[in-house]
Amino acid sequence: MTYTLILLRHGESTWNALNQFTGWVDVPLSEKGTAEAIRGGGLIADAGVLPDVLHTSLLRRAIMTANLALDAADRHWIPVRRSWRLNERHYGDLQGKNKKQTLDTYGEEQFMLWRRSYDTPPPPISDTNEFSQAGDPRYADLGDDAPKTECLADVVARMESYLYGPIFDDLKEGKTVLVAAHGNSLRAVVKMLDEISDEGIAKVNLPTGIPLKYELDENFKPIKAGGEYLDPEAAAAAITAVANQGR
Amino acid sequence: MTYTLILLRHGESTWNALNQFTGWVDVPLSEKGTAEAIRGGGLIADAGVLPDVLHTSLLRRAIMTANLALDAADRHWIPVRRSWRLNERHYGDLQGKNKKQTLDTYGEEQFMLWRRSYDTPPPPISDTNEFSQAGDPRYADLGDDAPKTECLADVVARMESYLYGPIFDDLKEGKTVLVAAHGNSLRAVVKMLDEISDEGIAKVNLPTGIPLKYELDENFKPIKAGGEYLDPEAAAAAITAVANQGR
Repeated sequence: MTYTLILLRHGESTWNALNQFTGWVDVPLSEKGTAEAIRGGGLIADAGVLPDVLHTSLLRRAIMTANLALDAADRHWIPVRRSWRLNERHYGDLQGKNKKQTLDTYGEEQFMLWRRSYDTPPPPISDTNEFSQAGDPRYADLGDDAPKTECLADVVARMESYLYGPIFDDLKEGKTVLVAAHGNSLRAVVKMLDEISDEGIAKVNLPTGIPLKYELDENFKPIKAGGEYLDPEAAAAAITAVANQGR
Repeated sequence: MTYTLILLRHGESTWNALNQFTGWVDVPLSEKGTAEAIRGGGLIADAGVLPDVLHTSLLRRAIMTANLALDAADRHWIPVRRSWRLNERHYGDLQGKNKKQTLDTYGEEQFMLWRRSYDTPPPPISDTNEFSQAGDPRYADLGDDAPKTECLADVVARMESYLYGPIFDDLKEGKTVLVAAHGNSLRAVVKMLDEISDEGIAKVNLPTGIPLKYELDENFKPIKAGGEYLDPEAAAAAITAVANQGR
């Protein structure tokens, strides 16, 4: 008995293209991102790993990526589950700021600490900041627990119960599970599956729009560490590009 | 205490445009249909009747209409429930056939009986017909209960448990419910809500892409019979056009 989990990072958003910190700001896919999502669905169909259930964040770049990919794979009709726990890392006061300008203002060390340290969150965002999610109805149930900034450790903490809960529940039923989410929420999943250290996970970059397939054994351990991209060459090229973001 | 239910018939599909019987054949939206869906979402946003939960069929023209409309209304993140019970009427052996040719072949009387009688289904579709859904994984759970043809009475019968079950359950929780579906499954909903006779329902036509809002009283009776279109002028014009289909 093995279990199949497919991770799909959303296609390029309009703010990826502008090189801005996005976090929980709900920006749409760019034209390139739309094409990436459709291509990702084609890769899923070609590989014959057809999802039985979809899990997404509450952000439109992941939701639209899933919608487009599943339509391309003729699986648009499968059940959908959504959770804020799959959202991108909340980037706090950096949300809406240009990455290059932030690097110039704060310097390399502080910039890399916010971007790649495991447990240093950016300063929290003010409720009056135009890029705050205060008052957003989709997070109303969270009340005061809604984050105003997060480090990767926070994302791992909030993803843990969701991975071992709803996602594993679907896998245990024998379902092929598609998780359409974000760079950091998927990094959290990979960290837990592959048991990567707090330091090591900073160096893991997931490319946009290329499905990453994990086959898990009866103990939910990856049969192949790091999983398998459905387009390995494109993934290798894209990973290099992600690592150079903000330069 | 009142309850709010919004019915949305999918935008024009590629086969609406070709004047072909569609039924359970899973055709995409046309370009016009895509624009209708986005406009429908804008009407929902403008009216301020924001859906808390979505119910769709298993067919992409309803699913894509909902996806596009909800994105336009900034409600893409709400929970989704899907059921084959919301599918269009199964058109049996007529699926894939041109409406005008069918009219010419079988004559006005037979044509109108299949299209508008309450309880005369077209001949059943053969499993080997290219437009059959035999073997489609989304209906695997139905087994031998999967229809091979339906009259409107069959659609009402299969919609009854879904309307009074999952849809009413959400309404009872105070949720504004959006149902994105099809001409005949929505006709079944309207028949039950407005208590329309078996003969009367044949004359009810729902326009594509224009949200129809029902406010229901504490006994789930419509406060205004027939509900209220969010663009009444466009709805009146479109209803006339639908009634003339196939001529």
